[in-house]
Amino acid sequence: MQTQVVIIGGGPSGLLLAQLLHVQGIEAVVLERKTRDYVLGRIRAGVLERGLVALLAEAQVETRIATQGFPHDGTVISYDDQHFRINFTDHTDHPVMVYGQTEVTRDLYDAREKTGGTTFFNVEDVQIHNADLEGTTRPRVTFTSDGTDHEITCDYIAGCDGFHGVSRQSIPQEKRSEYEKVYPFGWLGILSETPPVHHELIYANSPHGFALCSMRNDHLSRYYVQCPTDDNVADWSDDRFWNELRRRIPPEFAAKLQTGPSIEKSIAPLRSFVVEPMQYGRLFLCGDAAHIVPPTGAKGLNTAASDVHYLYRALTAHYRENDSAKLATYSATALSRVWKAERFSWWMTSTLHRFPQMSTFDLRMQRAELEFLRSNTAAQAALAQNYVGLPY
Amino acid sequence: MQTQVVIIGGGPSGLLLAQLLHVQGIEAVVLERKTRDYVLGRIRAGVLERGLVALLAEAQVETRIATQGFPHDGTVISYDDQHFRINFTDHTDHPVMVYGQTEVTRDLYDAREKTGGTTFFNVEDVQIHNADLEGTTRPRVTFTSDGTDHEITCDYIAGCDGFHGVSRQSIPQEKRSEYEKVYPFGWLGILSETPPVHHELIYANSPHGFALCSMRNDHLSRYYVQCPTDDNVADWSDDRFWNELRRRIPPEFAAKLQTGPSIEKSIAPLRSFVVEPMQYGRLFLCGDAAHIVPPTGAKGLNTAASDVHYLYRALTAHYRENDSAKLATYSATALSRVWKAERFSWWMTSTLHRFPQMSTFDLRMQRAELEFLRSNTAAQAALAQNYVGLPY
Repeated sequence: MQTQVVIIGGGPSGLLLAQLLHVQGIEAVVLERKTRDYVLGRIRAGVLERGLVALLAEAQVETRIATQGFPHDGTVISYDDQHFRINFTDHTDHPVMVYGQTEVTRDLYDAREKTGGTTFFNVEDVQIHNADLEGTTRPRVTFTSDGTDHEITCDYIAGCDGFHGVSRQSIPQEKRSEYEKVYPFGWLGILSETPPVHHELIYANSPHGFALCSMRNDHLSRYYVQCPTDDNVADWSDDRFWNELRRRIPPEFAAKLQTGPSIEKSIAPLRSFVVEPMQYGRLFLCGDAAHIVPPTGAKGLNTAASDVHYLYRALTAHYRENDSAKLATYSATALSRVWKAERFSWWMTSTLHRFPQMSTFDLRMQRAELEFLRSNTAAQAALAQNYVGLPY
Repeated sequence: MQTQVVIIGGGPSGLLLAQLLHVQGIEAVVLERKTRDYVLGRIRAGVLERGLVALLAEAQVETRIATQGFPHDGTVISYDDQHFRINFTDHTDHPVMVYGQTEVTRDLYDAREKTGGTTFFNVEDVQIHNADLEGTTRPRVTFTSDGTDHEITCDYIAGCDGFHGVSRQSIPQEKRSEYEKVYPFGWLGILSETPPVHHELIYANSPHGFALCSMRNDHLSRYYVQCPTDDNVADWSDDRFWNELRRRIPPEFAAKLQTGPSIEKSIAPLRSFVVEPMQYGRLFLCGDAAHIVPPTGAKGLNTAASDVHYLYRALTAHYRENDSAKLATYSATALSRVWKAERFSWWMTSTLHRFPQMSTFDLRMQRAELEFLRSNTAAQAALAQNYVGLPY
């Protein structure tokens, strides 16, 4: 089998890239380790930067987001007995769009099915060959799907297969540098069929730890509390969760909190990770394959989207204008924005969580950071610009 | 002996307060542990916020600063192979004033001598009595000066006697909370009679550590390099210093650096420190007696000046308008601005120094912070506003 681009990974980044390429008349085959239903069962973030929304429109999958997404033009931040609002549109002229990652993925799968593009599911034993060879030898990707061996010859490979995928591992260890920080806490998240406590997100730094009140729609809420990394979901009854959340958010919100049974409950670790370069010959990494951010600030999917943007532009220039300059500089271009998102996510995480072994001075610095943010327009503008998304 | 206010400490904060009170017709006696010449021999920072410059004018000691000070409307920041300029006047309409702390102190001593105000030198064994008593019992300060015992009865005591002074220690331990961070490096500073390498300051984060190029005037430069806290000045020849400085600043500046013999060379530790409250009955702490900042960002004298501003306003309201409300809230008012200066100094220090045991990820976050600052106007505005001084 032959194609122009093999996309390893059928999550939102891989599918978005496939769809964007399709619109440009560039053929791609998508390989997904799991099933479509499995992918759609993953609960992830739901705050989309304006750049990602624009990219979805360019991929012609903007219909549902336009009617079912919730534009948010601000967010609430609380600490101690204070809370304040960051107004995004004051500082950026753009809101963010609240629309679940699951819904994005569903829209992209629906669109892909309409295009008739080839997607393999239940893919195992993916191997990348000749990605680094110069000249006329084309790369090959071998794999099994539902037990059958396959081989695809292609021009380029997009590694959209996440942190544990084969793509990054296919760059020889001596050719890559990895940067990592593991945070000493996790996020316990629940999804519940209750109206959100507030029409905007609430990021709370409380003496009991971080909490986030988020939402999917008017009757579906997503809440998180910071917890020890070794906590067990089984030890967190719904009641315990709601009580913990209630004491971490400002009293006026806590009083309004509507609770109900959780329909999903899980603990996620927090990690920052970047690999450099994001490119190895004709293999290009996108999204979690190359970088992880802690979820504070919702930059995971959004930063994957910025990679997709750069790679899609580069492939389009190559195929349609015979200009390969952007392909050659993909890694440097993508990484420049990646590090900014890493910085923002690290800063949001550092500013809003309680770390073990913080000194009383450290706690006061965190408070002073939040006080400065509350009182200084320039600091609010910097946050707003990062939150709605720095320009591509 | 009786007076209205006893000011413990004849450094710039104590003298500024004395002079401001004198202008308002409020009598103060100043007690200084050393001699005038000793105080004037201390080499300190030389970047004055607009608020301090305005306060000096209010104290009627603005003549020399107006002719000999250097207004700076920007500063240079460098890292790796990049450097960029923060323009203060773009973001704040105000420059900072470069004018040595020694010169400020000299101006204040000259002014004080003209007023005929009482100043005791060589003061030892200072003790504060009855600062906390309510009612009509007035506080007393006892001390010896040149071997003679003295006792002054007063209305209020201003503790301007620095980190090691008696004032803070006079607040019972159970009545105060202290917050501290000791940084794992020091600053080796030299003063040399050479033209400054640049007409503005250069803050440099280099792989070899932090460096600062500062200046007093056209033929007097002040330079610093980050060094281990246990380094010995004797191990730092002038040549070694200049070589180290040269490799830490951008090549185009290094090439222009004019070196010469140092006329002063010393190592200072870096520390953040705050005591709460800054008030104990009729004793009010100002400046280093209550808080220390690391010198990055030059907030030491400037934050002392903001305390002096609040205390002077409060005492003036008390004596001239019989309104003691500001005296009652002095600590809270002063601390609110102190913590902002602490945050800024901590952030500047954290962003510009190499810390032992930084991971490669930490180094990248530092770089990303500087990249963001270089590329983002809001981040530059936040720095500029802090640097020229947040409003009182």
